Amino acid sequence: MIIFLKQGISFQDEKKFRSFLVERKVEVISVERKKQKLLVVIGRFGELTKREINSSPYVESILEVDRPYKLASKSAKQGPTLIKINGLTIGNKEIIYMAGPCSVESKSQIRVTAKKIKESGCQILRGGAFKPRTAPYDFQGLGKIGLHFLREAAREFSLKVITEVMDVRDVELVEKYTDIFQVGTRNMQNYPLLRELGKARKTVLLKRGMWATYKELLLASEYILVGGNENVILCERGIRTHVPETRFTLDLNAVPYLKHETHLPVIVDPSHGTGRANLVRAMSRAAIAAGCDGLLIEAHLDPRKSLSDADQAISTEELTKLVKECKLIAKAVGRQ
Amino acid sequence: MIIFLKQGISFQDEKKFRSFLVERKVEVISVERKKQKLLVVIGRFGELTKREINSSPYVESILEVDRPYKLASKSAKQGPTLIKINGLTIGNKEIIYMAGPCSVESKSQIRVTAKKIKESGCQILRGGAFKPRTAPYDFQGLGKIGLHFLREAAREFSLKVITEVMDVRDVELVEKYTDIFQVGTRNMQNYPLLRELGKARKTVLLKRGMWATYKELLLASEYILVGGNENVILCERGIRTHVPETRFTLDLNAVPYLKHETHLPVIVDPSHGTGRANLVRAMSRAAIAAGCDGLLIEAHLDPRKSLSDADQAISTEELTKLVKECKLIAKAVGRQ
Amino acid sequence: MIIFLKQGISFQDEKKFRSFLVERKVEVISVERKKQKLLVVIGRFGELTKREINSSPYVESILEVDRPYKLASKSAKQGPTLIKINGLTIGNKEIIYMAGPCSVESKSQIRVTAKKIKESGCQILRGGAFKPRTAPYDFQGLGKIGLHFLREAAREFSLKVITEVMDVRDVELVEKYTDIFQVGTRNMQNYPLLRELGKARKTVLLKRGMWATYKELLLASEYILVGGNENVILCERGIRTHVPETRFTLDLNAVPYLKHETHLPVIVDPSHGTGRANLVRAMSRAAIAAGCDGLLIEAHLDPRKSLSDADQAISTEELTKLVKECKLIAKAVGRQ
Amino acid sequence: MIIFLKQGISFQDEKKFRSFLVERKVEVISVERKKQKLLVVIGRFGELTKREINSSPYVESILEVDRPYKLASKSAKQGPTLIKINGLTIGNKEIIYMAGPCSVESKSQIRVTAKKIKESGCQILRGGAFKPRTAPYDFQGLGKIGLHFLREAAREFSLKVITEVMDVRDVELVEKYTDIFQVGTRNMQNYPLLRELGKARKTVLLKRGMWATYKELLLASEYILVGGNENVILCERGIRTHVPETRFTLDLNAVPYLKHETHLPVIVDPSHGTGRANLVRAMSRAAIAAGCDGLLIEAHLDPRKSLSDADQAISTEELTKLVKECKLIAKAVGRQ
Repeated sequence: MIIFLKQGISFQDEKKFRSFLVERKVEVISVERKKQKLLVVIGRFGELTKREINSSPYVESILEVDRPYKLASKSAKQGPTLIKINGLTIGNKEIIYMAGPCSVESKSQIRVTAKKIKESGCQILRGGAFKPRTAPYDFQGLGKIGLHFLREAAREFSLKVITEVMDVRDVELVEKYTDIFQVGTRNMQNYPLLRELGKARKTVLLKRGMWATYKELLLASEYILVGGNENVILCERGIRTHVPETRFTLDLNAVPYLKHETHLPVIVDPSHGTGRANLVRAMSRAAIAAGCDGLLIEAHLDPRKSLSDADQAISTEELTKLVKECKLIAKAVGRQ
Repeated sequence: MIIFLKQGISFQDEKKFRSFLVERKVEVISVERKKQKLLVVIGRFGELTKREINSSPYVESILEVDRPYKLASKSAKQGPTLIKINGLTIGNKEIIYMAGPCSVESKSQIRVTAKKIKESGCQILRGGAFKPRTAPYDFQGLGKIGLHFLREAAREFSLKVITEVMDVRDVELVEKYTDIFQVGTRNMQNYPLLRELGKARKTVLLKRGMWATYKELLLASEYILVGGNENVILCERGIRTHVPETRFTLDLNAVPYLKHETHLPVIVDPSHGTGRANLVRAMSRAAIAAGCDGLLIEAHLDPRKSLSDADQAISTEELTKLVKECKLIAKAVGRQ
Repeated sequence: MIIFLKQGISFQDEKKFRSFLVERKVEVISVERKKQKLLVVIGRFGELTKREINSSPYVESILEVDRPYKLASKSAKQGPTLIKINGLTIGNKEIIYMAGPCSVESKSQIRVTAKKIKESGCQILRGGAFKPRTAPYDFQGLGKIGLHFLREAAREFSLKVITEVMDVRDVELVEKYTDIFQVGTRNMQNYPLLRELGKARKTVLLKRGMWATYKELLLASEYILVGGNENVILCERGIRTHVPETRFTLDLNAVPYLKHETHLPVIVDPSHGTGRANLVRAMSRAAIAAGCDGLLIEAHLDPRKSLSDADQAISTEELTKLVKECKLIAKAVGRQ
Repeated sequence: MIIFLKQGISFQDEKKFRSFLVERKVEVISVERKKQKLLVVIGRFGELTKREINSSPYVESILEVDRPYKLASKSAKQGPTLIKINGLTIGNKEIIYMAGPCSVESKSQIRVTAKKIKESGCQILRGGAFKPRTAPYDFQGLGKIGLHFLREAAREFSLKVITEVMDVRDVELVEKYTDIFQVGTRNMQNYPLLRELGKARKTVLLKRGMWATYKELLLASEYILVGGNENVILCERGIRTHVPETRFTLDLNAVPYLKHETHLPVIVDPSHGTGRANLVRAMSRAAIAAGCDGLLIEAHLDPRKSLSDADQAISTEELTKLVKECKLIAKAVGRQ
């Protein structure tokens, strides 16, 4: 159950009400949102009834949620979450295209790429400055200077920015440069990081762990939502299976499933989800037909020369075709 | 390598040529097709060179295939395999909709269902008479009388028929009633069955084993093709993964991958591939956007009363909506 | 529920009792065993109570089983199933070692191998005459003559024989040569084959499908048990997972799980379960420590020259070491 | 390749040598160990030959490693890594038993548990103070006070301590209380955390990600080793598979595989690896028979009342039996 407190409730009153709940053995977690405070009840209602809680003068309304995830649950909110970033809205009718190289490699590389990304019809520029790499000997990203190049390139071509944050100690730094924090698949259950992002004000795109169930993904998003950050995007990016011909198995079942369960926007990453450039276009179309809100695509000026993930990056020419085809599909499912 | 023999080659000459190959340590498997005989070379060319083989008076042409599957390989054929069944073509521009109940339950059930299936815009009626069931205590299908009901219903509403064959000893019987043999996921590597179907004249729809790689699926189809039956359809129907929220994980990556590798038509079964009726429509759209040639869907007059697989069957009303939406997607990808 | 009929019940009386059950809407499947007839009740007891069924003059006793598998369930039998083959008992204190080449390749190969197998301390000779191969172009086994070589070699060195049967039409032939039918992983849910083996009198070793759950394996064994053949051995042989370094993931959790659930003997195949010769010895020890009743091992005179599965076969010298080490483990767990 | 620098090399000389390498385009990562400095060469040797590098006056010896993991590779070290903790050695002949509750719940709980753990013959006390929980609403551990209770209990009964660290910012705090840092499955690829632990002086037990390959586990350990911390223990704890009857599939193939590849000790966690208390004893025996160096087991005074992971914890009585049985297996494989 979620308890919505009266708007403008004083700190004093809130404290009083929480003490009352503790006395009656109702365990809650407090969520501080920009516009409203709320309390998520853990387990049952202690010695109180729902009616008793609802009739408290401090309570505006209560909401029952029959799912282990509360704030992420569809029933916790009327309508979909619309995330607004400087004139762009994610989660609405418009399909969002996020594209760019796996890593920011140089100032000129990201600048020229940004130009092409923009021309292809994409709205958001992706690029890694802090890279999670399987081996310590692989290229680990340019770090802070990479963030700077990324933001500059995005600004010049009026794109928004998405980039990965891996370390809780970098959240503040990355927030200065990005519009959207990306949490990578390996960090889906990095709870200290999720909690820190729950306190941030920028949007978080949470990638599904390659091992995770849908419930685990939704519960991971709950860690961010409970911190008060309402702007969370879920991202399907492929799971580990026995199939050797693709790097991961893109699980598009997740798209309609999540859309039934949550009000959060759902994005698909067909680049990691296949690991093969020649499957990306088809799976991008499929993702939109399945009902997702946008795509996250690895595109590189010259994929063969990419410093990381060369096999799955598509060229910017291929990206242009992709967006064109996806727009036809978007129209066929009543999106734009 | 595949050796295409001169058309109209006499039995005598063929025998002579094969003896010659054996002497020179070239191992081949002979494939008897309606219009042409061919020999698939196993491994290397023994003591001969490609040129020597090609210059034989018995040889029309040779073809090199750099894949473990030879006849199924894209390079083995110009253009896609078009399967013609009484005025219907599978593998061409037209998307094929196969729908019907998991099991044929009674004469009237299948008749009324067939009517609705036809009205929805589907071309092929599915229905199981021999059912592979996990437990010996589950409903095993009506058998021969079920085949009869199925064919009658299809005839009345001008539908083609697809139904499963499980037992090599039933191939002849099933062939009398069906247009397409369905080989279920559990039988993808039932080699005696595949060999028997290689000798049959009706089309075979081969479902991917829930454990199989793409290569294994293509090699399984090779067992049928080597028998001389050129009419094989591949079917993606979901794989076993760790995801508990769906019955199987529909692996749409398979669609563009297979389309790159083979000339055979590719069909998708979103009913088994999700195991949840409320995901079937979205995944049907996605499958077509990914480039498949048709769908195989479980639809039931009253899904809750289905004798088998109740959770994943959709109603015939839902089927009508599905076909309508899919036609929009088909158009968006240049199909009809 | 299982209904044990009075011993020596006449055909007439049995028919009468079954008609009575049908009238009262109790659905049953009849199981004809050597020593006793029984009826497995499907679902609930129709219009009867347990007591009414039990008090019938035709009924010796009834047994409730709260599992989907009835005859395979531990509660269906007192004590473990002991399978007796000409002086050898499987399922008792003695650990059973089955070893031999993947394929019977020639008369002398299998003869010399049998000698070494015997000297290593194994009791049963394995060898494939009918091989299920992923591609139609791979070596498919010697067929009937292979069975003959296998039996001759086994006879000379006083070994029992296990060999695979793939085709329902071969059951009769294979039964003449073998002591134990092996059902391969791909055929775990080949129901016509299982039903046919249910009617056979020889023991059946049923390998777990590489995709199967424990419940599905037990239900597959139920198909054989329901046919009246009580001599079924279950075999864990590895499942398909994402792990690329081994061919399959040997799931030893299956051993204690199955031993808790069923009275049937459980055998482990560490050769397929790892796919790497250098892991076989360690996993054989582990399997016995986990509580299995025996091992099925691929051993070859010269593994590098094996016509099939070369990577996983161990040499007969390595086999000797393996059996020696396993005997120490067996002793440590109270076996011999 | 690994370059071992002359012992006692001056900072000046090291700098000079590294500049020389940079000039000749040899890329290296410097590893500062207690007793020796070394440089891991990334990729090829730039413009130098192996001989030129080896003949440098600053170089003691060089070592070629043909694996992506260098320091973790078996060839990087003579003999196994022996980890010494206050009189206890891990990685030697003695099998190590680590046991305790999932979470430290109270001072008295952990004290009484520690007593029983000691009496069972275990050497190390486990217990979580910082718990990674799937939902933010689950019990998250007692934090610092929990660490305190754990250390006190261990001290009283002469046990060593292992406890989990999740947050890079907690490394310093946890190091004060623990003998071994546990890195949980979800954090196997939390690179900032691994890097921080590379700088710590206490031993690290690194659990395999439930999705990870063996190579990925070894490469994750490389992140710690590159930091200069040589005391790393690998832990197999089960992977995500399709099997629904167990929580995870314990992959014992990993044990002999890792023992072939690395000099690091390998521990097995049969509690998470099965998720079922009634399978833990058998799988503990199997793990030791497979060649592991120790076990990590969840044991609780009253498993049904455990605040977390109740299904998989065994009672301390069961633990006593387990250790007794495991000692018999240890002896059978030449361990103690």
